Amino acid sequence: MKTIDEIRDLIGKAFDEQEQSFEPRELYEPIAYTLKNGGKRLRPILVMLGCQAFSDEMDEAVMPAVGIEMFHNFTLLHDDIMDKAFIRRNQPTVHIKWDVNRAILSGDALAIKANVFIASVRREVLPEVLGVFNKTALQVCEGQQYDLNFEMINEVSEEEYLKMISLKTAVLLAGSLKIGALIGGASTKQADLLYSFGHDMGLAFQLQDDYLDTFGNVENFGKSIGGDIKANKKTILLIKALIQADEKDKKKLDKWFSTKKGNQGKKIAEVIEIFKKLNIDTYIRKLVIDYSHKALETLEQIDVDPVRKEELVKFTNQLINRVS
Amino acid sequence: MKTIDEIRDLIGKAFDEQEQSFEPRELYEPIAYTLKNGGKRLRPILVMLGCQAFSDEMDEAVMPAVGIEMFHNFTLLHDDIMDKAFIRRNQPTVHIKWDVNRAILSGDALAIKANVFIASVRREVLPEVLGVFNKTALQVCEGQQYDLNFEMINEVSEEEYLKMISLKTAVLLAGSLKIGALIGGASTKQADLLYSFGHDMGLAFQLQDDYLDTFGNVENFGKSIGGDIKANKKTILLIKALIQADEKDKKKLDKWFSTKKGNQGKKIAEVIEIFKKLNIDTYIRKLVIDYSHKALETLEQIDVDPVRKEELVKFTNQLINRVS
Repeated sequence: MKTIDEIRDLIGKAFDEQEQSFEPRELYEPIAYTLKNGGKRLRPILVMLGCQAFSDEMDEAVMPAVGIEMFHNFTLLHDDIMDKAFIRRNQPTVHIKWDVNRAILSGDALAIKANVFIASVRREVLPEVLGVFNKTALQVCEGQQYDLNFEMINEVSEEEYLKMISLKTAVLLAGSLKIGALIGGASTKQADLLYSFGHDMGLAFQLQDDYLDTFGNVENFGKSIGGDIKANKKTILLIKALIQADEKDKKKLDKWFSTKKGNQGKKIAEVIEIFKKLNIDTYIRKLVIDYSHKALETLEQIDVDPVRKEELVKFTNQLINRVS
Repeated sequence: MKTIDEIRDLIGKAFDEQEQSFEPRELYEPIAYTLKNGGKRLRPILVMLGCQAFSDEMDEAVMPAVGIEMFHNFTLLHDDIMDKAFIRRNQPTVHIKWDVNRAILSGDALAIKANVFIASVRREVLPEVLGVFNKTALQVCEGQQYDLNFEMINEVSEEEYLKMISLKTAVLLAGSLKIGALIGGASTKQADLLYSFGHDMGLAFQLQDDYLDTFGNVENFGKSIGGDIKANKKTILLIKALIQADEKDKKKLDKWFSTKKGNQGKKIAEVIEIFKKLNIDTYIRKLVIDYSHKALETLEQIDVDPVRKEELVKFTNQLINRVS
């Protein structure tokens, strides 16, 4: 059995061993820049852990794991253009460091490279792996579109928000696990259970992200608190607060979230004060814990030696208790 | 044996039968718009003809043929953003009709849909088909990057130009044929010969495109003559003319191609006059004919009943003698 840390090292090495010199360099330079910049590597770790749940032969999962991470980075690269984001992982985004054309085209090339890596699995499981991957990839685009739509509409329901984060985030975590499981020789039924585990775990992960963005500790979080509030993002925190707030607080929230101008420090402080008064922090943490418990219950149903699932349990607990 | 026209109808029907109603519509509307707009459908026809060269069972080739056309349309959608093109097939481009974000994201989704269709081939040939497709797809991105680079640099050699059109255009025509051949059960050797035929035919096709853009007959061509000249494109016509021109004409060309301002009618007329004086039209037509002859010689080497190759011969002759 490999630990999460051992797997992270293994994935890191696989990325380091990537050929770096391709022509034309204008196309491949932004790809190398993006992949080098790192990140948590959650998705490739999940591919490996999904495989480990069913097999000791994990070598075949390394390339598709790298491919999934490439796909994830491709979506970030294009999302950053759409969201006009300047900074990603403390570095300028590709469309800022170079330009929009370079970001579009190198993103496209990165997506194709992802396909190459994922298509490396053995013939016997290739159609099934591609079935999961392509379906998931399309859902991620749908999630990003819903997220863009939310900026244009006034009211987003809690249900709509959960559907958006399901598509934009949870399905790729779930799909990573299922792809790993299929490579590891899992039956469809077992692979689907692992997918279901991953989906609930993914929702918990994203909700914890939303929680930390507003209620995190600035020293641990690594970036400033209140980014979503500053950007007027219709997260579940705001959605829930608008339902529960009295007229006066609702007016205050509506006012703050209708503009990006004004004293940002005051905005963040006042909004957080209202959120806390309405126990939004407790509510979101409860959601995180409920989804992760549901995930772990599904994990228990998977019919393999519990030792094969140990790292997945650890992984889930780390995600929901993380402070950054 | 199916004729080109029969195949075109078949492909058209396959597109018409596509499910049109997907959510979110903001994502899928631009895809339906792009695919409905048509075009020559050259690439799916080549997938089908490649299959027909080796097999009468062409049903399995229809979905990947549609997939290849989706991929091609995805590249046009993103290229139109990068090239700031307003019109495509007499309609506003996606980034103009909607916006850049919609064009980026619906292009991404269209590329993923293409993967879904291509991955529908039977398990026994799937890795081989994906190998050709993914390699080709990456080369098309490289070709687009070289094309973008050409705008930034002063001198492009004939060799560099041919490499660019090889990557941007010829490899996808060649790859379409090879994918069809693999589906039709061709050996690697026979499929490679068909690829080689398609690559030379693709170069002839693109060079004929360049020829028509400058020397076409406006009534037949369907769009105005001189688009490449207006846009200061470093096509093979200009590259060759700059090599052969005397100092006076070289200065004139340099002047006209250094700005997009000035009397465009006069610019086109003067540039065409210089091109004609230098026999650039004859030179390009000779290249078109040489590449197509080379293509047809390769086609002859393919070891199947000549009747299976008849439509490919017709297709090649149509491409090089076309006036639009």
